[in-house]
Amino acid sequence: MSDVKAPLRCVVLGCGVVGTEVVRRLLRHDADLAARAGAEIELAGIGVRSTQTPRDEVVPSELLSEDLETLVDSADIVVELIGGVEPAKSLILRALRRGASVVTANKALLAEAGPELQEAADAHGGSLLYEAAVAGAVPVVRGIRESLAGDRITKILGIVNGTTNYILDQMTTTGADFDTALADAQELGYAEADPTADIDGFDAGAKAAILASLAFHTRVYASDVPTEGIREITADDIASAKATGNIVKLLAIAESVNGAIAVRVHPALVPADHPLATVSEAYNAVFIEAEAAGTLMFYGPGAGGAPTAAAVLGDIVDVARGQVTGGRAPSDSTYAMLPIIDSGLVPNRYHMRLRVADRPGVLSEIATVVANHGVSIETVRQTPGEEGKAGLIIVTYSAPQAALDATLTDLRVLGAVEEVVSVMRVEGN
Amino acid sequence: MSDVKAPLRCVVLGCGVVGTEVVRRLLRHDADLAARAGAEIELAGIGVRSTQTPRDEVVPSELLSEDLETLVDSADIVVELIGGVEPAKSLILRALRRGASVVTANKALLAEAGPELQEAADAHGGSLLYEAAVAGAVPVVRGIRESLAGDRITKILGIVNGTTNYILDQMTTTGADFDTALADAQELGYAEADPTADIDGFDAGAKAAILASLAFHTRVYASDVPTEGIREITADDIASAKATGNIVKLLAIAESVNGAIAVRVHPALVPADHPLATVSEAYNAVFIEAEAAGTLMFYGPGAGGAPTAAAVLGDIVDVARGQVTGGRAPSDSTYAMLPIIDSGLVPNRYHMRLRVADRPGVLSEIATVVANHGVSIETVRQTPGEEGKAGLIIVTYSAPQAALDATLTDLRVLGAVEEVVSVMRVEGN
Repeated sequence: MSDVKAPLRCVVLGCGVVGTEVVRRLLRHDADLAARAGAEIELAGIGVRSTQTPRDEVVPSELLSEDLETLVDSADIVVELIGGVEPAKSLILRALRRGASVVTANKALLAEAGPELQEAADAHGGSLLYEAAVAGAVPVVRGIRESLAGDRITKILGIVNGTTNYILDQMTTTGADFDTALADAQELGYAEADPTADIDGFDAGAKAAILASLAFHTRVYASDVPTEGIREITADDIASAKATGNIVKLLAIAESVNGAIAVRVHPALVPADHPLATVSEAYNAVFIEAEAAGTLMFYGPGAGGAPTAAAVLGDIVDVARGQVTGGRAPSDSTYAMLPIIDSGLVPNRYHMRLRVADRPGVLSEIATVVANHGVSIETVRQTPGEEGKAGLIIVTYSAPQAALDATLTDLRVLGAVEEVVSVMRVEGN
Repeated sequence: MSDVKAPLRCVVLGCGVVGTEVVRRLLRHDADLAARAGAEIELAGIGVRSTQTPRDEVVPSELLSEDLETLVDSADIVVELIGGVEPAKSLILRALRRGASVVTANKALLAEAGPELQEAADAHGGSLLYEAAVAGAVPVVRGIRESLAGDRITKILGIVNGTTNYILDQMTTTGADFDTALADAQELGYAEADPTADIDGFDAGAKAAILASLAFHTRVYASDVPTEGIREITADDIASAKATGNIVKLLAIAESVNGAIAVRVHPALVPADHPLATVSEAYNAVFIEAEAAGTLMFYGPGAGGAPTAAAVLGDIVDVARGQVTGGRAPSDSTYAMLPIIDSGLVPNRYHMRLRVADRPGVLSEIATVVANHGVSIETVRQTPGEEGKAGLIIVTYSAPQAALDATLTDLRVLGAVEEVVSVMRVEGN
């Protein structure tokens, strides 16, 4: 592990939901964070419009300042979470021109002035990172910039707006019409009172511009992206799509076409067995086709304070690492050295298939044996068997391996049980 | 963009399918590669067991050498694609002790000696990168190391073996039994003549050890991972899983449990609507639960020459960038500046819903109009409508927007067409 260096001064501009979460994580003085970054990251200040606004108790009032320029001028790393174009743009340029690095989640600004900001970073030797600006915690920006750096991307299909995905998913699963699904989304906080930016595809358009710029090394602005939203999608459209084996999704699309690129946002049908089709609720996913890598997909939460803060923290660590270790790849430091326990001690859900006698009372006998070992049954399903026998599928709630083993031992000697046909674990709930 | 620096000397050890593909891409002198890396990457030598073995014409014979140690001693970056423990381990240690960086795809070695290699890298200031060792082109190693660096991972569920996923997918979709699906996989080259390492979970176990080490900063070796393979899975097991809404997958699982970790490989049922359930054929995917980021998934091809080479190239660029630019984040260089074309010029598949007269000959009239504009029909589906009317869903092959618009104009004035109800694009094929 590299030696720990002098702390890096980090200032956070903006202290809303994401900013508060970033502050919370920076103040935790996480061993992980310092080890991965190669240095302590010191939260040197928090820039806000008014220091009088009530805030979460995690935010230290002595770090708050309304003088954002002075904060910027003192920082090694500036985290911009104000949003919108100004004053965010001026503050970011001010930081970059000092040679500081900037981490931002500001998609609107990047889609309008990304190339200008990047040029300032390049000219003065700082880094400009913005994982959180596209698809929240989904690490697609790093994926394109780094993992696919030796490859050529040919096409990107992204579900990059959680609000519209939630609405379309509701329409698909419940048969609701657009207005009902929108009202539902608004009630649950997935859609804003004025949902225009999401519903009409403008938010997805900004993200499409950012993704296309990254993937194709070309200046693409939000104004280059024709957008079509989901207002016109009817319950009948969804049903018709289903009837032909498809799901309707709002897609941000960027592709290379004979040496040019085309970027757009519109609803589209995707086959029900395509990886994008299973992206449900407010989740985001970006599907990428590349010459060598083939098809990749990055999936995860597209919004929310904690996920967005996770993406911001990843960028902060990346910047710190560059400034401290000169870009050495992070060590897989084994400082934690957690004990490795016997996996048999980890409770699991189980799916058991039994062949049993086909007579009244059998289920109750079996349920009693299972309960005696403290194992709870989630579902039981009877299936027809050959003469005098029945099939039984039992799915349990989480239980220790030892409890399951003891249950099986007893079941095997129970008169009603002909055979324990198979036992499999259940994951993913 | 940073100035272009002196070339970095890169040697490739091993020249099989992946090695040849890496050589091909390094020799392409790609503008992308140099721009992203900040320097030319010079292929300085290719280490092989015998220079007499016939090779792909892309491999320059003058770069071949059987003296691997001398090659290693001349390199800034060593790419190890020999596989197995020795001589790979000695050569990697030799490189790292010189302060060179190493990129490897060698999962067996990493699962046996990863911590020792990492210590050598840390002690001498080089980087050790191995994106290709787990899940091929799927950038999960970088995802854990960098994107989630500010977060805490709680659980990983990975489909990290393509052979077993192909077999289970065949059993699920065709109802085949294990032996038939295995024979099928062997015929298609998805399984080896001796499939033990895949089928019995040892390959997945090595990858589970690597993922667990990374995620939990703890030394986990392949020998720490209990593995259970898929030999015992029957067609009935698959059918029973389906009946309860689940799919059977072979999972590599690593999780933190009360301050300890548990790592294992076994088949498990996952709900059919879980993102892992749609990972079909020989694809890989890694599903990660983290405190702040929530649930993320990385999906893509887990093997194959080109995808694995793509992961290796990504690592080479990462190393080069660290050595040249001192770890500044890569610039989103806009050197390509491709023209942005009107998305209307990009052909699309379309899904049209029409309300038409319910009488003989209508379909033929409509098909004629569509064909007249050069648009090909993939499927037509009739649905019952109200009295005297029928519904028609037409899905087209790829057609330019202009051809579709002209088709719609003509359809709208056709006597047989009551209404063009909706038109949506189709993506993802």
